[in-house]
Amino acid sequence: MGCTGSAGRNSQNQLLMEKLYVIKIGGNIIDDEEKLGFFLKEFSSLPYKKILVHGGGKLATRMAAELNIPQQMIDGRRITDAETLKIVTMVYAGYINKNIVASLQKNGRNAIGLTGTDGNAILAHKRINKNIDYGFVGDIDEVNTSLLKTLLDQNIDIVFAPITHDGKGSLLNTNADTIAQEIARSLSSLYHVHLIYSFEKSGVLRDANDDSTLIRKIDPDSYADLKEKQLIFAGMIPKLDNAFAALDSGVAQVIIGKAEQLNQLIEGITGTTITHAS
Amino acid sequence: MGCTGSAGRNSQNQLLMEKLYVIKIGGNIIDDEEKLGFFLKEFSSLPYKKILVHGGGKLATRMAAELNIPQQMIDGRRITDAETLKIVTMVYAGYINKNIVASLQKNGRNAIGLTGTDGNAILAHKRINKNIDYGFVGDIDEVNTSLLKTLLDQNIDIVFAPITHDGKGSLLNTNADTIAQEIARSLSSLYHVHLIYSFEKSGVLRDANDDSTLIRKIDPDSYADLKEKQLIFAGMIPKLDNAFAALDSGVAQVIIGKAEQLNQLIEGITGTTITHAS
Repeated sequence: MGCTGSAGRNSQNQLLMEKLYVIKIGGNIIDDEEKLGFFLKEFSSLPYKKILVHGGGKLATRMAAELNIPQQMIDGRRITDAETLKIVTMVYAGYINKNIVASLQKNGRNAIGLTGTDGNAILAHKRINKNIDYGFVGDIDEVNTSLLKTLLDQNIDIVFAPITHDGKGSLLNTNADTIAQEIARSLSSLYHVHLIYSFEKSGVLRDANDDSTLIRKIDPDSYADLKEKQLIFAGMIPKLDNAFAALDSGVAQVIIGKAEQLNQLIEGITGTTITHAS
Repeated sequence: MGCTGSAGRNSQNQLLMEKLYVIKIGGNIIDDEEKLGFFLKEFSSLPYKKILVHGGGKLATRMAAELNIPQQMIDGRRITDAETLKIVTMVYAGYINKNIVASLQKNGRNAIGLTGTDGNAILAHKRINKNIDYGFVGDIDEVNTSLLKTLLDQNIDIVFAPITHDGKGSLLNTNADTIAQEIARSLSSLYHVHLIYSFEKSGVLRDANDDSTLIRKIDPDSYADLKEKQLIFAGMIPKLDNAFAALDSGVAQVIIGKAEQLNQLIEGITGTTITHAS
């Protein structure tokens, strides 16, 4: 899983390291031109090294419907057959990725769009599951940090589409949250990495439909308590498990919050901050 | 038009420079999985720095038909309206570009796929034409050589899709022959650049339907003669004009020939070589 290290071992070094923001934006923002434009303006103006990881949005589903390619879902996950892989490669790596890069260039930020096959940036393998064949879905083995560092050191922002490869000629559809987490972990030996999951909600909520129930800070103790009392929306649990795993691997900070409030998330005045110690 | 210089001025320096191959592959090869696979194997094994520029093939036209997007052609050129730009971005920058890169990775070559918006690699403007509105079609203003050099110096092959951008947020559909030529010209101050146009024919033919009528060498004198006597297939004339323009801008050599004979083209044992002196 690339370069990792315990939070303790890295905490001294990280103070001397340059800040890097790894920011995931969710599909609902991708689908909304106005929100995406606003987000990309805020993103462009951040005076830090940064990597953006985008999800897919609904365009791939729409395209598949228009092309009469049936979409099979199991437990809310898309099964990626060969035709679906073709569609998501076109939509995620082509249309969405290149338009985001063109917008950043318009905003005066130099940026480059990548998938995991570009520069062998993210090597993965086809998911192995006894019960379900997910098709061309990738689980990540390794992030190539040297290419990413070279680009970041040239003051180029990196924009990742959620596509990886297996090194044997196959592209693989890969969860964008996981890509963001693995990139953040791998780069935490080189940078003081802040990982932000931005989406349509204000952060981790006690009630998924009420933004005023935002939980501002979660540490391992309060997380155990919230889970036990079932006070967290179930859909957030994998995100939070990932967040703690990232902290364990050397990531300095994980923030979950609203994409339209990127500046405030970074300043720590809104969103949910996941920390080791209270 | 980036860094250019006369062939005379560069000839001394070029002997000291490292070789770079800029290779264009045509759409007919892209459409043929077996030929493309063979080409990419030969390409992968070339022990030189190299840049591949690919055309579009017929998939974009097929996709547009399946999605009921009418395609307007004027003088054999596709008019790129907003919906067509979306399709070509998906097909060229997504599907074709990323699958070529994944194949090169499988062959053990590290490669990265780019469009002109990535790293601001190729800046263009929307074509201005009094009589015809070509839509989102780009004419190239500038190639950013520093990013390309950084990647090449890391022993990463670069694969360009025929998409550029205008720096104002628009992607632009751009002729792949022209992209190859402008990249070759711009990099000729840094490398000893060989430009290869590879396609389905053996090179410049006296009779377009007869591969045995291959012309092995063309210099300015013989070109004038061939044109005057109408001994060249008319479709080759823009390619040849571009080839001489590239030589005038410092490109060391231009070769036109068959994609399946890449090694022989590079060894100079087949194809048409365009040179300044006879």
